[in-house]
Amino acid sequence: MNTIGTLFRFTSFGESHGKAVGGILDGCPAGLKLDMDFIQNELNRRRPGQSAISTPRNEADKVEFLSGVFENKTTGTPITFVIWNKNQESKDYDHLKDIYRPSHADYTYEKKYGIRDHRGGGRSSARTTAGWVCAGAIAKLFLQQKGINISAYTSQVGHIKVEKSYNELDLSLTQENSVRCPDETIANQMIDYITELAKEGNSIGGIVSCVIKGVPVGLGEPVFDKLHARLANAMLNINAVHGFDYGKGFDGVHLTGKEQNDAFIKKNNKITTKTNHSGGIQGGISNGEDIYFRVLFKPVATIKQKQETVDKELNRVELEAQGRHDPCVLPRAVPIVEAMTALTLTDLYLINR
Amino acid sequence: MNTIGTLFRFTSFGESHGKAVGGILDGCPAGLKLDMDFIQNELNRRRPGQSAISTPRNEADKVEFLSGVFENKTTGTPITFVIWNKNQESKDYDHLKDIYRPSHADYTYEKKYGIRDHRGGGRSSARTTAGWVCAGAIAKLFLQQKGINISAYTSQVGHIKVEKSYNELDLSLTQENSVRCPDETIANQMIDYITELAKEGNSIGGIVSCVIKGVPVGLGEPVFDKLHARLANAMLNINAVHGFDYGKGFDGVHLTGKEQNDAFIKKNNKITTKTNHSGGIQGGISNGEDIYFRVLFKPVATIKQKQETVDKELNRVELEAQGRHDPCVLPRAVPIVEAMTALTLTDLYLINR
Amino acid sequence: MNTIGTLFRFTSFGESHGKAVGGILDGCPAGLKLDMDFIQNELNRRRPGQSAISTPRNEADKVEFLSGVFENKTTGTPITFVIWNKNQESKDYDHLKDIYRPSHADYTYEKKYGIRDHRGGGRSSARTTAGWVCAGAIAKLFLQQKGINISAYTSQVGHIKVEKSYNELDLSLTQENSVRCPDETIANQMIDYITELAKEGNSIGGIVSCVIKGVPVGLGEPVFDKLHARLANAMLNINAVHGFDYGKGFDGVHLTGKEQNDAFIKKNNKITTKTNHSGGIQGGISNGEDIYFRVLFKPVATIKQKQETVDKELNRVELEAQGRHDPCVLPRAVPIVEAMTALTLTDLYLINR
Amino acid sequence: MNTIGTLFRFTSFGESHGKAVGGILDGCPAGLKLDMDFIQNELNRRRPGQSAISTPRNEADKVEFLSGVFENKTTGTPITFVIWNKNQESKDYDHLKDIYRPSHADYTYEKKYGIRDHRGGGRSSARTTAGWVCAGAIAKLFLQQKGINISAYTSQVGHIKVEKSYNELDLSLTQENSVRCPDETIANQMIDYITELAKEGNSIGGIVSCVIKGVPVGLGEPVFDKLHARLANAMLNINAVHGFDYGKGFDGVHLTGKEQNDAFIKKNNKITTKTNHSGGIQGGISNGEDIYFRVLFKPVATIKQKQETVDKELNRVELEAQGRHDPCVLPRAVPIVEAMTALTLTDLYLINR
Repeated sequence: MNTIGTLFRFTSFGESHGKAVGGILDGCPAGLKLDMDFIQNELNRRRPGQSAISTPRNEADKVEFLSGVFENKTTGTPITFVIWNKNQESKDYDHLKDIYRPSHADYTYEKKYGIRDHRGGGRSSARTTAGWVCAGAIAKLFLQQKGINISAYTSQVGHIKVEKSYNELDLSLTQENSVRCPDETIANQMIDYITELAKEGNSIGGIVSCVIKGVPVGLGEPVFDKLHARLANAMLNINAVHGFDYGKGFDGVHLTGKEQNDAFIKKNNKITTKTNHSGGIQGGISNGEDIYFRVLFKPVATIKQKQETVDKELNRVELEAQGRHDPCVLPRAVPIVEAMTALTLTDLYLINR
Repeated sequence: MNTIGTLFRFTSFGESHGKAVGGILDGCPAGLKLDMDFIQNELNRRRPGQSAISTPRNEADKVEFLSGVFENKTTGTPITFVIWNKNQESKDYDHLKDIYRPSHADYTYEKKYGIRDHRGGGRSSARTTAGWVCAGAIAKLFLQQKGINISAYTSQVGHIKVEKSYNELDLSLTQENSVRCPDETIANQMIDYITELAKEGNSIGGIVSCVIKGVPVGLGEPVFDKLHARLANAMLNINAVHGFDYGKGFDGVHLTGKEQNDAFIKKNNKITTKTNHSGGIQGGISNGEDIYFRVLFKPVATIKQKQETVDKELNRVELEAQGRHDPCVLPRAVPIVEAMTALTLTDLYLINR
Repeated sequence: MNTIGTLFRFTSFGESHGKAVGGILDGCPAGLKLDMDFIQNELNRRRPGQSAISTPRNEADKVEFLSGVFENKTTGTPITFVIWNKNQESKDYDHLKDIYRPSHADYTYEKKYGIRDHRGGGRSSARTTAGWVCAGAIAKLFLQQKGINISAYTSQVGHIKVEKSYNELDLSLTQENSVRCPDETIANQMIDYITELAKEGNSIGGIVSCVIKGVPVGLGEPVFDKLHARLANAMLNINAVHGFDYGKGFDGVHLTGKEQNDAFIKKNNKITTKTNHSGGIQGGISNGEDIYFRVLFKPVATIKQKQETVDKELNRVELEAQGRHDPCVLPRAVPIVEAMTALTLTDLYLINR
Repeated sequence: MNTIGTLFRFTSFGESHGKAVGGILDGCPAGLKLDMDFIQNELNRRRPGQSAISTPRNEADKVEFLSGVFENKTTGTPITFVIWNKNQESKDYDHLKDIYRPSHADYTYEKKYGIRDHRGGGRSSARTTAGWVCAGAIAKLFLQQKGINISAYTSQVGHIKVEKSYNELDLSLTQENSVRCPDETIANQMIDYITELAKEGNSIGGIVSCVIKGVPVGLGEPVFDKLHARLANAMLNINAVHGFDYGKGFDGVHLTGKEQNDAFIKKNNKITTKTNHSGGIQGGISNGEDIYFRVLFKPVATIKQKQETVDKELNRVELEAQGRHDPCVLPRAVPIVEAMTALTLTDLYLINR
């Protein structure tokens, strides 16, 4: 199903090589000023063709609003926006009409629906996330007014990992390099590694880390809409995501209760916690501390190497990708992680009122 | 919010020291024969007081059905069930009325709702999961008819880890020991470790792994109800869960696309994949292979050691837990993971029709 | 499906001759003081056996709360309540096991679900509305705090009709007679008519009118959750309801736009309307004026006269009702109409915040 | 909120004088062939400027599909369609910027949202129903395959009423005249009456009747998604609708149970009912008989006569409508009633599987 959220509801549409991608954002509070430059800039951070390590498909990704905005402000009615597909090269995909690409959704879509738009992955393409980033940008504008700030960054590519925790990093540096890693030394290693794999026609995954600052106490609706469950759900719906953890996460599995518990203390006449191993959430509700989590991306399935697969008739086929693809989605995934985080938080913020 | 599911909707209720926990299961197909022994057995697997390494709170956890069942069959109307709380010792909690226990939900519930049932964690207690296990048992009975089988087991406790993959294990052995780990050698190490920590009054977390066999191609509803996103959401809503991954997961972060891609092959005149690094899901839809995922549990926050915290008036307080608690929730979490998996799959199964 | 509402969600359960009816109210604001006498009194207004013109089935309809209430206040967690069935006489229904009663839901339930609890109508019985009235009573307590007041009354029974509009009546008199009509003269005619039909074993329907005062401007969520659409939906879900209109309604069909339009005027330095033909709603949103609407009930299908029907085997059968039934549901429907109105308004109130 | 449906979900967008109206239809079964001529024809039945008794605003209302359709078939992914606004004359509305038109939604929208697109009613305009008709046309194509047929017609305009019941009429004649009434004599009276009122600048409402044939037993989901409650909800969300009844409805209020009950009989070796006073629905579930209901429309609020109102500053203002309006919406409402019926039935059909 293509809608997410309870009060702040985003419905996504669009295929990779259809006319357009986009969506409807329903339930956005009225009177929100839409900073169109900010929104377009978020789309630019996600758009293809932006750097040497991303796909050469070149889309301007200019957003057009069809409804819900009047004199540059939201009106409380559904906000519809469209990002037209321009640089489609659908014929690149003609040879894939009857073939199931390994680790792609070709086979499952065809079996589920009995029909499949094979051009560029159709609905299963990450191109649809352009619409998500636009919706997320509007959510970010709402959250900014509430003092809530979201920063994601690439923290791992393959085996190359940022060892520092987020509060030892200057997250404003994230945008400074093409891999979106705020640790410059590690960033360069990542870029070199991606470049090398790209040459081989191979691909690599990694981890995007995300930090949210300024969340008030109280967001999250137990027992089945816990804040972290909503975040996990949002993240796992992003293409290629295979894992999520928050707080100490999988890396802290060896720590005992004594080591992980966060003591409450008084600071500036307020309650805070001495440590924040809980990742800013207790019992599914934000506790006022920083929220931080990790999102695991598997490598892009499209590689420019010969691969074995079958076609519809179960004939064995050898396949070598054509078309235009990212060797590593992490850099372009950073704004998508932020966007889905923003949609989730805004919805829970509105429910909590 | 306390309802999960679209067509197969489970609504949970109950507090640790209230009259009862339970729920309403709405949308269950009519005519399903309820094997009451099976359902009670599932509850027994979760109930407290079942072994030396679980809490001494002793509840029979007998389930009583109030509606939706006629002559032992479901009627298509809402199925309501109640598990009465009997062994409450609420006065154990009197001293916690004004105190926020570290890494518990006391503080966040009180701030969010302005009122809190402090007895045994109230709504934030894992006692509510008794109801989930009952609902999940009904879902399992439905799925069994469709040939779908769910097996969870404890795969890691602290640093002690089962190294074998699920298909190298005999999962029928899971029930043979108190920690619910099918690898006997590792199981004994886990039990020793938990026993040792329990003596110190400390606690430990770990990982539950889960395997689903027999899922037909087609379950999952992209782009915002992908099968793995629904599973992640269900898992992260379980008390103390901090992480989820599926397929190769976080452990496979260093693998390239070439290494992770699953080639489609023909086998017995059907399409299957040579490897299953994707964990049985592609593009958010089941592909017919085994689905497998991991669920990370943090250590129980309640430890029987002195801890620093504050009370409502922001006074510093030293706290040492009384009451009855598990040093490690993993063994009792195994049926909960299975139950939430069953609820998720049944809902997606019904939607897919 | 058995849940109604977006933020203030009520899930209903129970069969006429099962163990209990009741429900879960999820999303109720925390800290609401539950006046248990008020709640019980609402149930008493609906309970069977309360007057000469209602069914002799005698149920105390005492409500028992299982969760969500602490020290007599709501805690923000799901509120579960149970009304135990005590005065079942299930054997009265044994002869109906294989028979489809005319204009009852026996046939449709059996065809839809393949199984049917035939005792007293099972799930299709109006007995389930006892739970609705309890949930509605809680909603009323919430709305009272906001100055919103709901008054329903019997305005028509068969051809006997209150000709005065609601603002010409003293609605506090509604409770003064057994038919719940505030016009004493008409009330007596209604009672006589019902009594006469009851003697013949016949039944009659009619109209409940409802007025809501004190609704602030702004409730209702166009374009698909308009206030009056939500009200219509709530009303039509009440057993035996066959129609709904608001404002001038069907009786005003001959009036032109010029005659029906409500001019805006200034009064006490506020905007109000000169007339209120719109029934307090414009564009699906409350405009601050009184909201008024009508609910049509068809006659009870159970009559104590010989009727023709068929059994499962398609044999022709002659049927004469036994069991205990109302000759006219209108008096007992008044609190149900109020309850469903209260649930609807509370949900829209919370969404509008 | 702007989405309707559970499995077959339609999200509407657009303002009267924005760029476009349209929507996203999510959950449509894959493989449905879209007959574009049929869809366009449905839109033509609703479009303005089609006859002497409808508004002179002239819109071609050509629909453009942006997603979800591949090689003219639905793919199971969200279907997005846009109907561009072309013939806007927004300056006609400049003088209404600060004025609240009587019985329009100007005042309630402005108070609710704090901002209002005043051009042509903005979101509250019936122009948005162009998108609903497009979605409904797709639903009709689905239902046609299942043998389900929906026919609406104008049965009353002001005091002029078709006295015959639907089964005494030839419903194929509905399209033969501009008022969409299958009784030619009555149709001419209606047209004369509307023409006369139009000359005076006045407007009139009436009733659309609707019949559904071929519905299988089993549609409708008690207790809160009863078939007739869903229909009522869908109808009351249509602009200007003030009432709904089904079966005998308000006109049968004087009939007793004995007179209204529908005896089950055997016919052609199947169960059917002797009469159909229940309108094809029992207990909220279709019983296989014809479903029929009525929808009450109030007169259009815009009249070309001087009317009293106030502006934002509470100054008294005299207003005389300019712009282009229908003196009677009934003829153009007929396809809208059918469309909303089709959306409702398709959703319940899919849920019932």
